[in-house]
Order: sequence, then C-alpha cells, then structure tokens
Amino acid sequence: MSRISYVNGAYVPHRDAAVHIDDRGYQFADAVYEGVTVRHGRMVDLEPHLERLWRSMGELRIAPPMERGPMRFVFREVIRRNRIENGFLYIQISRGVARRDHAFPTTPTHPSLIVTLKRLDVDGVIKRAEKGVKAFAEPDIRWGRCDVKSTSLLPNILAKQAAKEKGGFEAVLVDRDGFVTEGSSTNMWIVKEDGTVQTRATTDNILPGITRATLLKLAGELQIRVVEEAFTLEDARGAAEMFLSSSTGCATPIVELDGHKIGDGTVGPVAKRLVEAYRLYMEA
Amino acid sequence: MSRISYVNGAYVPHRDAAVHIDDRGYQFADAVYEGVTVRHGRMVDLEPHLERLWRSMGELRIAPPMERGPMRFVFREVIRRNRIENGFLYIQISRGVARRDHAFPTTPTHPSLIVTLKRLDVDGVIKRAEKGVKAFAEPDIRWGRCDVKSTSLLPNILAKQAAKEKGGFEAVLVDRDGFVTEGSSTNMWIVKEDGTVQTRATTDNILPGITRATLLKLAGELQIRVVEEAFTLEDARGAAEMFLSSSTGCATPIVELDGHKIGDGTVGPVAKRLVEAYRLYMEA
Repeated sequence: MSRISYVNGAYVPHRDAAVHIDDRGYQFADAVYEGVTVRHGRMVDLEPHLERLWRSMGELRIAPPMERGPMRFVFREVIRRNRIENGFLYIQISRGVARRDHAFPTTPTHPSLIVTLKRLDVDGVIKRAEKGVKAFAEPDIRWGRCDVKSTSLLPNILAKQAAKEKGGFEAVLVDRDGFVTEGSSTNMWIVKEDGTVQTRATTDNILPGITRATLLKLAGELQIRVVEEAFTLEDARGAAEMFLSSSTGCATPIVELDGHKIGDGTVGPVAKRLVEAYRLYMEA
Repeated sequence: MSRISYVNGAYVPHRDAAVHIDDRGYQFADAVYEGVTVRHGRMVDLEPHLERLWRSMGELRIAPPMERGPMRFVFREVIRRNRIENGFLYIQISRGVARRDHAFPTTPTHPSLIVTLKRLDVDGVIKRAEKGVKAFAEPDIRWGRCDVKSTSLLPNILAKQAAKEKGGFEAVLVDRDGFVTEGSSTNMWIVKEDGTVQTRATTDNILPGITRATLLKLAGELQIRVVEEAFTLEDARGAAEMFLSSSTGCATPIVELDGHKIGDGTVGPVAKRLVEAYRLYMEA
C-alpha cells in the first residue's frame, strides 16, 4: 500500500504530494511544524502538540488553516488511511503561497497545511534507550527565537550531521558562554551526583518540548527532584548521568559525550526510571 | 502570456510549478538561493552571483545540480521564454527530496533547482533611490552563518515586517553589542562627516553582497574613500549619509532612521554619486 499524505485539503498518494514553489515555507522557512509519535494507533500528547502549534502560529502571526477539531480529524484520517500503528505524524503549516517578497503578503493568502505519516520503530527507540547513545558538542549558532518551532532548521541539520560524522547520535548545542542549550532536535538533561535532574528553563530561548514537559510530570510522580537551570558543557561532562528527550526519541540516555564516558558509561538508575516511566506513559 | 518557471529539468507554467513536500528546502530550509537583476534582458553581475551560489553550496555540501554552463543556459532560457526585459531572476537550490531526517540523506538525492523570473520596475527602484527611504532598527536575531545565502530567512522576514509596520522600507539589524550588521535583505553603509564611506567587513558573519562588491569597485573608481569596519547604531544616527545596497535595491539612500533624519533628511552627495554610478553600471 502506498503512503497517503494530506496536502492543502486533499488526501494524495505521498509520491504526488507537492506544494507550489512560491509557498513561503519553501523560499523563506516561513512555516511551523510539529511531530507527533503515534503509538498503537494513538497520538501521544496530541493536545499539548496542538497547543504548541497554535502558539507557534500566533508568534509568527500565521492564521490557522482550520480549527483544531477538523485538524484532529485530518490527523486521524491520515493515520487510518496509512494503516500505521506506530509512526511519526508530521504536521507543517506555512504562511501560504505568495509572490516572493520578504514582508508578509499584503493580499490574503491561505496558509498551507501538510500532514504526513511514516512508520516509526518505537520498540527500536526503546531498545536504543536501554543501551544509551553517544553525543558530541557543537556550537549553538541558531537564531534567537528557538522557542518557536519553525522550519528554519539549517543550523540544526548541520549540527546533527557534524555529530553523526563523528559517530554520535545527537549534537549537544553549546552557547557562546559555554552553556548547553538543547540538542539539534531534542531537549538536554543531566543528573547530578545527588540524583537531582537538571534541564534548562524554557524561558531561555529553549523549545518547550512536549516530551520534556511530560518527563517533568513523570519525574514529579516518581519524586525525583528537578531543577530548571542552565548547565555548562563541563557540568555535563562531569554529570552522573545525561539524557535527551524528544517526541520521537522519548527519553534516551547519553552514555558518552565527546568520547568521554558519562558516569560509568552505562545507563544510570535515574535515567532508567524515567525511560521506563515514559515507556509506560506511551502505552497507557 | 503566462509566466514560465524552470523546475527540476522542465520549463512549466508558473502556476503549475511545484516541488515535493519532502523537498528538504521545504521542511528544513536546507537550500541556498540567489537573486539576479535583469536589466534590458541582461543579467547584472551574473558571474559573481554564480560564484557565490557555488560557494554557498560548497559550505553546505550540496552538490551542484548541473554545471555552470548549462545553468547559464537555463537562466537565459527562462528570460527568453518570459520575454521580460527588466526583472528579478530567482534561483534556488535545495539538497533534494528525501525521507524526513535531520542529518543529510544517506541515499543519493538529486538537488532541486528552481528558477523563476518576475518583472522588476528597475526605473521605479532608481526613482526611489533619488528620493530615499525610511528605515528602522531591529535586533539581529539571525543564525551564525549569515555569510551563506540560505533560505533560513524567518528572522529576516520578521525584521522586514516589523520595519514595514512602522512605516519603513527596510530594517537595520543591530547585534547584541549595538553594532549594525546588515539590513533584512541588504547590506548597510554610512558616510561619515569627512566623506568616508563605511560598511561592515564580510569577515564578520556578513553576507558578501554582490552589489556591495560592485559599489566598492565603483567607489574606488570615483576616488571615494571606503573603510570596511563595523559601525554602531549611534554612528548611523549621527552619520552624514546612510544607504543600503542589494541586487534588487541597487544603492538606495536611507534618509530617516527610527524617525530621525540622517544628515539633513535628504539624499546626500556621496550616496547620490554612487546611486548614479550604479545606474550607469547597470546600463553598460
């Protein structure tokens, strides 16, 4: 069966899914997106994803292409038509098609909406989390509004690629002052010697990760102490444990940073509890 | 006659010009571009534009979709088929279509090439330059590789829009230290009391503007002294003259900044000489 995608009002075979070259998403990265994990046919944390999508549109003053109700319907319909149980639902909304000009179009344009679904090996993600991954520090050269989930992702892909070529799974982005900001497509966490979990506050030009928020809630339920404070690359290197979070990556321990072991180089007890709590959360 | 655009090997009616939604230009801003002014059917500064396009591709490791010779042919063919004498030729190259993943595709992809042409009122641009424009300062929140002409333009369009809503033609981007970097789609220049022209060095994460380079050459021929050095917003406010440069904007004097007159609020003598020199350069 061929993949089906939703593009501006129509469900089309994925191979035919196209947008006009004057779509502002293509020429200006004037677009926002969300990625939702589908587990056993159910969208994980759909409502917070919708909430963030609306916030992103609001920040860029992109008008929602439709109300939330019909949008939920489109998502479910894409899942149904693709008959995928475990997947990655991708939603992108751009300001629409307009004659090229930097400023917002002066004539009304209809925002573009695309929704795609691909298979995601969620069990593989969990297996990877049981083993841990390697990461490499890269300078954070992103723009100043990383709280908006936009498609202005060129610095992210360059950082991810650089880390990958060194043998890493993710890049740990470090700002000019030596502080860790995020991963290239993840939020970053450390566990201190006393078991306290630390992640940077989202007031700091940090994407308010949905999985990040869920992990904060789960940590509370597990009575794990959390502080939302910036930490340096040195702090991370000396941490007892480290892990990343993202919708598709869940919670994934980082056992090696820049070739140096984090802790004893294996998945630590605090990360292990959170990985397991998140796994159960997805199953619920 | 309908507009004709070139998209990945075919000349198509512009209304049908489309790319796949998995084009990395659409989902990651993983693309570079150039805009070339067409004057009397001739491409202004074509070779430096091609040179910079190749440099941008090189920096991002995007393989050229074709050699320069065939690409020049495509540009000429787009101009010929559209029968446009004065226009804006837009060229965009992305890393191509691939299943969504931040890292570069591991299977070979063919880079996407689109070329469009729209009418540009070059005489109107020159008229505007004779009158001067207003500009407004906006914080520079762009990424750290502005020397690469990529489609990661969201901060640029937000700055342009902010300036426009204040009644300005362009935004003057100011970095955290109070220094002017560029305009949202232009290079920035001031003229000091002693007649020296000043523009920021391109070693400073500044786009090496093609019109900027041509103006440097023309200034030399006119024996106007130029220094390539950063200047602050305060320097700009107190300057004798100010102007911007870009391929579509040529050299355009800024006569008002943040509501305050630059000099006496009219186009000054140095800018006037450069505007005229560039006008003649385009006619040559």
